[in-house]
Amino acid sequence: MTLNATHDPARRSWVESANVPDADFPLQNLPLGVFRPSLQAVARLGVAIGDRVVDLSALAQAGLLPPSVASACQQTTLNALMALGAPAWSALRARLSELLGADTCPPGELRSRIERHLTPLRTAIMLLPAQIGDYTDFYASLHHATNVGSMFRPDNPLLPNYKWVPIGYHGRSSSIVASGTPIRRPHGQLKPSDVAAPAFGPCKNLDYELELGAFVGPGNVLGERIPIAAAAQQIFGVALLNDWSARDIQTWEYQPLGPFLAKNFATTLSPWVITQEALAPFRAPAYARPPSDPAPLPHLNDETDAAAGAFDLTLEVWLLTAKMRLTGEGPHRISRAQSNGMYWTFGQLLTHHASNGCNLQPGDLLGSGTLSGPTRESRGCLLEYTWRGTDPLRLPNGEERQFLADGDEVIFRGYAERAGARRIGLGECRGLVLPAL
Amino acid sequence: MTLNATHDPARRSWVESANVPDADFPLQNLPLGVFRPSLQAVARLGVAIGDRVVDLSALAQAGLLPPSVASACQQTTLNALMALGAPAWSALRARLSELLGADTCPPGELRSRIERHLTPLRTAIMLLPAQIGDYTDFYASLHHATNVGSMFRPDNPLLPNYKWVPIGYHGRSSSIVASGTPIRRPHGQLKPSDVAAPAFGPCKNLDYELELGAFVGPGNVLGERIPIAAAAQQIFGVALLNDWSARDIQTWEYQPLGPFLAKNFATTLSPWVITQEALAPFRAPAYARPPSDPAPLPHLNDETDAAAGAFDLTLEVWLLTAKMRLTGEGPHRISRAQSNGMYWTFGQLLTHHASNGCNLQPGDLLGSGTLSGPTRESRGCLLEYTWRGTDPLRLPNGEERQFLADGDEVIFRGYAERAGARRIGLGECRGLVLPAL
Repeated sequence: MTLNATHDPARRSWVESANVPDADFPLQNLPLGVFRPSLQAVARLGVAIGDRVVDLSALAQAGLLPPSVASACQQTTLNALMALGAPAWSALRARLSELLGADTCPPGELRSRIERHLTPLRTAIMLLPAQIGDYTDFYASLHHATNVGSMFRPDNPLLPNYKWVPIGYHGRSSSIVASGTPIRRPHGQLKPSDVAAPAFGPCKNLDYELELGAFVGPGNVLGERIPIAAAAQQIFGVALLNDWSARDIQTWEYQPLGPFLAKNFATTLSPWVITQEALAPFRAPAYARPPSDPAPLPHLNDETDAAAGAFDLTLEVWLLTAKMRLTGEGPHRISRAQSNGMYWTFGQLLTHHASNGCNLQPGDLLGSGTLSGPTRESRGCLLEYTWRGTDPLRLPNGEERQFLADGDEVIFRGYAERAGARRIGLGECRGLVLPAL
Repeated sequence: MTLNATHDPARRSWVESANVPDADFPLQNLPLGVFRPSLQAVARLGVAIGDRVVDLSALAQAGLLPPSVASACQQTTLNALMALGAPAWSALRARLSELLGADTCPPGELRSRIERHLTPLRTAIMLLPAQIGDYTDFYASLHHATNVGSMFRPDNPLLPNYKWVPIGYHGRSSSIVASGTPIRRPHGQLKPSDVAAPAFGPCKNLDYELELGAFVGPGNVLGERIPIAAAAQQIFGVALLNDWSARDIQTWEYQPLGPFLAKNFATTLSPWVITQEALAPFRAPAYARPPSDPAPLPHLNDETDAAAGAFDLTLEVWLLTAKMRLTGEGPHRISRAQSNGMYWTFGQLLTHHASNGCNLQPGDLLGSGTLSGPTRESRGCLLEYTWRGTDPLRLPNGEERQFLADGDEVIFRGYAERAGARRIGLGECRGLVLPAL
């Protein structure tokens, strides 16, 4: 994707909070989401700008949006817009950039009409951005796969298929929740290795997993494939994703068919979808794929996609414990990873997913898998960070964690920055751990 | 569940085709589905009786159905009815039994009003019965798990968790198709053990899996559980399910997170949902769970559910090859298995699924996993029947199969019979294999 006026780092919005240097949502971002302006109001689409949400439904009704997207912008989820495809998404972005730009929308009648439809972000109630038909979680971080593999198979951490097949499995759609939804510690069958029989009780080894989630655009018809050259245009955008995991449930249940109850009690998604066009300036080759590795098979190997590269975002994990809340401390950053540590791009994951004719649909969600880097401070889950609890996380206030405690709030943040581009942010993905029932 | 007048084997329908001894859909069955009377018509609910479908939407509009179900019966899927719960399902069944019974609805005005809304089964276009939000596939047949395990781990066929944890994993919802939909042979990465690198090409080892699918009723709220004593009442009903499988794709991809592209290219479901109340006379203890095995953990162990037992249905696999179609032969029966070979009841599977707080929703589908019995003639897939192709299936016309060939049509049939009860059938689940693209 080529850059255009919507990426111009010099442009400012007339919504002044968007022009603060570290703002997540400057004029160059324009992420899309679904919100209620108040508890009683119906859900509607919105775009974030500075510390405000613009009501896209109202703009569409006022005739201010391109005809190609006007109907899709009046739905209660992003699915219809996702189905329209990249040219329509681009037309919407260009128009929003124009309507919210200080240069392109000077004080006057037009600006006043838009100002009527701004809601403060802090009072907007954010919902899931889409109705997610199917959710697939991948395992695309080489460092994560190597770390986890080496705990269980020290001599052979990476299985022989890893560098050929993008490993993935189906997740649970019904339990995907919006950021801020409290997470109930699950029960499950637990069997410590030193006892003969399992017992049913609250999970002891509760964990987060730092992931990026990508939404599928138009998709494909059952029985057909998506060529790798067309794959990048099928990604509508990305959000932060916390794939909550119960490690002790997982250890006992996962052979031979993979994780199930260890994962499907909850998955948290951040509210703002950063569109692929907003991410265009922030792409880089996958650093975790050395040139000496086997080339992807031809159906997954595309010069265009490879040249454009993976999304290069910085993702962070922060923790706020109950004690820290009491003492008024702010959250503590545990780790920070780069999303181009993915061994496969989302384009490759999507083409692989449809390579057997499996039909992908607008609003389907693809998770990257836990994003970890090469250092301890870039590991995306506590399993890795504490190395199965053997080397606990030490917090500045003296608290220690092997896994999550009740009352812990896990906060993911993300942003992209690069010389010559305006920094953009992904916002936050939050979840507070509640005690087991 | 106690038996009632709707189960009385002596009762007959005024739709005469329902009274033929081997009819799948006698008055005692009353299975529910979704159909179009013609290509142009909108989808509506129906009940099968003999060789006819009764339009439930029309009956509801005519004021002939109980008020508690009238709105749900005018939807285009069964989901709303599934959400209402067992008392409403029972009220609908009692009323349909009355309206279609020869004794309770003699010739006259009422019968004439119903006769207007009959469509021949052979011209009705059958659709998927529900919008399936999430599809979970289990692995509940002890003989299947033992057979497959012994191929890959001869010394240790059953893993240590098998008799404690109902093993399951998430399937793909988008590619579940109605019976009769042709199945395109998928492509995938294949790596025979004697070559160094995989290649992308058409699956060579295409297989069917004979399963029973159960639809979830009202479900549960995220974070809460479903007690085992309440589980049986959460099952709306069952249908035949073919979990098409690409064995060669599966071998290469499935470690460490389970099957993915080997399964998600297609899953076929039969059109008629046999309700739990229709199945009440056909329950029996799970024969595959010997009394010497460990008792289920308390949260999965319920005297009521155990006494009621598993569904005891006879399920059959038939094959019709291209050559057999040319010569006018009928399909050949490969195998026949009993569904109470499941090690866990659907009630136990459902309680297990929600035991971590995972929210189940109306219309969610639970697959039993391949249903195999102790003999070759009761094995539910070719992988087992031909023992990985080493002992091919020999058809009466001289053809042989290690796995499915293009042009093969796989047909599942099912029925339940027991002394003192009227035999009922599940209808058919069909799929024709098309060549790879």
